[in-house]
Amino acid sequence: MTTTSTKGQRLPQTSKRSAKAAASDKRPDEDASAGARRRQIMQEAARLFGTRGFEATTIRDIAAATGILGGSIYYHFASKEDIFVAVHGAGMEKITQAVLAAIEGVEDPWDRLEAAAVAHCNDLLGSSEVPVIVSPYYSESLKGLRETLVAQRDRYETVVADLVEALDLPPDVDRSLFRLNFLGALNWMPTWYRPSARLSPADIGRQLVQGLRPR
Amino acid sequence: MTTTSTKGQRLPQTSKRSAKAAASDKRPDEDASAGARRRQIMQEAARLFGTRGFEATTIRDIAAATGILGGSIYYHFASKEDIFVAVHGAGMEKITQAVLAAIEGVEDPWDRLEAAAVAHCNDLLGSSEVPVIVSPYYSESLKGLRETLVAQRDRYETVVADLVEALDLPPDVDRSLFRLNFLGALNWMPTWYRPSARLSPADIGRQLVQGLRPR
Repeated sequence: MTTTSTKGQRLPQTSKRSAKAAASDKRPDEDASAGARRRQIMQEAARLFGTRGFEATTIRDIAAATGILGGSIYYHFASKEDIFVAVHGAGMEKITQAVLAAIEGVEDPWDRLEAAAVAHCNDLLGSSEVPVIVSPYYSESLKGLRETLVAQRDRYETVVADLVEALDLPPDVDRSLFRLNFLGALNWMPTWYRPSARLSPADIGRQLVQGLRPR
Repeated sequence: MTTTSTKGQRLPQTSKRSAKAAASDKRPDEDASAGARRRQIMQEAARLFGTRGFEATTIRDIAAATGILGGSIYYHFASKEDIFVAVHGAGMEKITQAVLAAIEGVEDPWDRLEAAAVAHCNDLLGSSEVPVIVSPYYSESLKGLRETLVAQRDRYETVVADLVEALDLPPDVDRSLFRLNFLGALNWMPTWYRPSARLSPADIGRQLVQGLRPR
């Protein structure tokens, strides 16, 4: 019952490449397919990490869900930790880009926060190619990766911190706490949101900010 | 490396009892000690579930952390799922009682919500005998227990829903969404709170409600 060893197949230099980098290589067909396979692995891994937890998910589970041989995973990723970092980073990158696109051209600071909340909700609650992992408790076995994961998350936190900085809040409001509570409410949504609900993800994002706006 | 089988020692009728019920039995010393052991198991299990996840935590892990033989766990609990239900229920009961005690005698609806937030933060972020499990994603293997867990959680949600119902909110505010975002912000706090932070759990609870109050 041990995972098949396929160290001979491992190509560490390739395993670190993004799908985009691989697609720009000399053999476009093969590399485009490797990129697609890589994304497929990431998507199944994200789903498994999200429902089962990081520790209880094995490379073999991910391979089975992707429909490829366990050993073939190692062609794309050096380890389960590597997959987690890739999934987490891609999720953070995706939500950051969605929020940046949503606030572009919006002038009023509260409107900007609202646009950000709507984009965040759409990304987190809508159908998403690579789901964002927003597990509040990074698993014990991920402690060694904490610095990497926090750095991936910090880029997004900075975008939100800048939005909060621009708000006309009363002087006694702690803006860090405001940001953390805003993100907390947003990130908790997957625990209760059901797609059949009467409110869309966008409605939910809008209402959250409307409740925070001074009236 | 299999868990020692101790089915002969299992006493299902005892396993469902609370520490309090056990303490009221005929042999007070033995039963009080069984109650204390039961609480000890629950506390270590809560810590392991919280850091490692439900699926990756084994009965043997819980036994090792508690310093007892793996098989002895079955004297107190029928299964790992049983431990989870006990821990989750005790956590929900504890936070509900803390909030009910905090709002008693407080008249103004916003002051009541603030007192509730402070009590919630103190319970969740302060040192706690049995930590509350607020994992947003109930693990796949807990799906069969979903109804039980949601029922345990619903009692607390009802207390908060009543507090929100009493607030003088603008007519366009969706009170369910208000409650869910309020609880979301509160339950997300363990992801970022560090005991050395400049703000106490009570400060954090107070500020959250002050930011929601109409000014």
